[in-house]
Order: sequence, then C-alpha cells, then structure tokens
Amino acid sequence: MDFSSKLLEAAVNEIARLPGIGKRSALRLALFLLKQPESQTGQLAQSLIKLREEIRFCNNCHNISDVEVCEICRNSNRIKQLVCVVEDIRDVMAIENTGQYRGVYHVLGGKISPMDGIGPNDLNIESLVEKVKSGKVEELVFALSSTMEGDTTNFYIFKQIESYDVLTTTIARGIAVGDELEYADEVTLGRSIVNRIPFENSLKI
Amino acid sequence: MDFSSKLLEAAVNEIARLPGIGKRSALRLALFLLKQPESQTGQLAQSLIKLREEIRFCNNCHNISDVEVCEICRNSNRIKQLVCVVEDIRDVMAIENTGQYRGVYHVLGGKISPMDGIGPNDLNIESLVEKVKSGKVEELVFALSSTMEGDTTNFYIFKQIESYDVLTTTIARGIAVGDELEYADEVTLGRSIVNRIPFENSLKI
Repeated sequence: MDFSSKLLEAAVNEIARLPGIGKRSALRLALFLLKQPESQTGQLAQSLIKLREEIRFCNNCHNISDVEVCEICRNSNRIKQLVCVVEDIRDVMAIENTGQYRGVYHVLGGKISPMDGIGPNDLNIESLVEKVKSGKVEELVFALSSTMEGDTTNFYIFKQIESYDVLTTTIARGIAVGDELEYADEVTLGRSIVNRIPFENSLKI
Repeated sequence: MDFSSKLLEAAVNEIARLPGIGKRSALRLALFLLKQPESQTGQLAQSLIKLREEIRFCNNCHNISDVEVCEICRNSNRIKQLVCVVEDIRDVMAIENTGQYRGVYHVLGGKISPMDGIGPNDLNIESLVEKVKSGKVEELVFALSSTMEGDTTNFYIFKQIESYDVLTTTIARGIAVGDELEYADEVTLGRSIVNRIPFENSLKI
C-alpha cells in the first residue's frame, strides 16, 4: 500500500501487528480515529500503556489482577480446597459468568504445544504441583479445552500429581443445552451417552 | 463481562469503541498485548497519538499528508487540470495502486447521507466548486461508490458546476475483469452493454 503519510503508515503497521487485523482493517481503524475527537485516541493510547505497565498477576492463581492477590483468592466465601485449572483468564471470566462455581482457579497461561514452542516450563504448572504437594487442595477440576494440546496438558499435570491425595475431575463434555442431537458430532454424543448422569441431577440447575 | 482488573476493563472498553471490534475481540487484543514485550504496546500507543496529533490534510485536495501540500499535488508530472473526486483517502490509495491515473484528486471526506446526518456542508464540496469556478479544472472525474449516497453526492456537485466550462466524467461501471457474466447483476451487465467501448481500447491496458 502506498500511504501519502509516514505517520499514517507507522500507525497502520503498528495496528496490523495485532492478531486478526490485516493492513486494510488497520487502515480503516486509523482513519476512524482521525475522524473522532483527539481525546478518544489519547484515552485509547493511555489505557493501553497503563494496562501494560501496571497490570499484575495474582501471586496465588496467576489470574489477572490490579493488586497482589486477586479478588477471587481474597474472597473468604470461595472454597480454597477446590481448584479449577484453566488455560487463560478468559476461561476464568467464562466460568465466573455462569455463577455456578464456588472454588478458586489456577491459570496456566496457555497449553503445552510443542508446535508453538510452548513447553511445561513456560506455563504455571510448577506452582500448581506445589499447591497440590502442600496438601491444601482437595479437588482439582481440569477445565482446559478438549484439543490435543489441552489433553496433553491435562495428562502432564495428572502424571505429576497422581501420587498425591487429591481428587482430579474434568468438566463434563456433552451435547450443548439447546442443541439438536442429529447435528452433534459422534465423539461428543458418544461421550455424553457413556457419561450419562441421573435424571434428577439435570433438574438441579 | 466481569473483569477482575479495572485496568483491563478500561483498556477493553476503549478498544471496543473502534468500529467492528466487540468486547470479546477487544479482550483478545488486550490479552495479546499483555503477552508481548512492553515496547510493542508503547510503540502502538505512541504511533496512534502521533498520528492523531500531527497529521494534516493537504490544503489543496484534502488528502492526508504530513506536510501542507500533499505529495501528489506537489508532483509536477501530475496533470493539475484533471481532478478525480473521491470519498476518502482509501480511494486515493486504491486508484494510485492501479498506476493508471495521472491527474490529481479532491477528497470529499464522505458522501451526502441524510440518514447519518451528513450534509453538503460537512464535506469538502465548497472548495471543489471554487476550484472549478476559478477555471483551473478541465475535467472532473467522479469516482464515488455507486450507492444512493454516492449518486446523490455526484448529482449535488454536478448541479453546482454545470454552468461552468468543465467536462464531467464518471469512472466506467461494468463487469469486473475475471468475472463470469452469468453471476453479474443485471444493472451492472446492462450498463456494461450500453456503455460498450471499441474493442481496440480494451487492448490498451
């Protein structure tokens, strides 16, 4: 693309480094900002810098936090012996939004993925194993996505902690509420039949 | 969404004000920046601020520019009597990329669109009419998109300048190069038949 302005070119190149945004979309965004009041660009830029410079991760669960220990870990109503293992903080938000979980979390920060050069040492696995070793955890709920990487990560963690006295569970896989059986994939449908639950339990939520 | 961090929430809200980016995409972008080196966020923020604060528009054609008069208007090889009327600077880039145009531009900054509250006075129409009145323009090429708003804008400008000695043309509409006739819409195909050109002309490009 031939920009008639170096400033515009620089901005477009920076925006296009974000994932899922190509040069064309970046140009559209830059031109949008130019049409808006100058204050909007200032606020956007400031909020990004502030986020990047001041954000912390919870010392305990590695969830994102403005302070040393996150709100969830500080909440005395949460069951500290119940720990849900998730990939990143978006999963924490998703589970929190259900309003169905009373335990705490442990955010790994990703999945083991040799293809992307991510090994166990790049993730918050050691601190999780330490937590289990210390005997403070009664149940570990694996809630990683059910992909090859997710399963690998689950298994890697499971192998490290299986000798300790901790219950390990995984979130239920099955047909989504509202979905039609005929469109479900076979693996999911198969699992949901094998892992069927007493009918009364489905009435609880 | 329940963010466990005010900083994150502020950044997501600011990003989500951009067009085509919802809260979920904004969150994904914010988390991406958190995983990248701090310098990337700094560069992005700086380039946006710099763009917004220092950008200028060409005094002559209203194209985006780092200086008072844009590169195209300053170029002595461009035909100053041939003026192409476009909606915004993305259209300038698109036409420049073809390498087929030797004239200069006039960027309106939008189209007349009563639905969006955009009237003739919000656009750079007056300066265009002045240009024509001054007698410096020999041909005006309308290159707005062929929507109702584009046609309205074309017609509005045409009405203001028709009494002056200036040739007005519009870019050719027709079947795109490489397209199959059977999938073309009737209006386009109809126009391309009515406005057919000598075969030799099609061999020139």
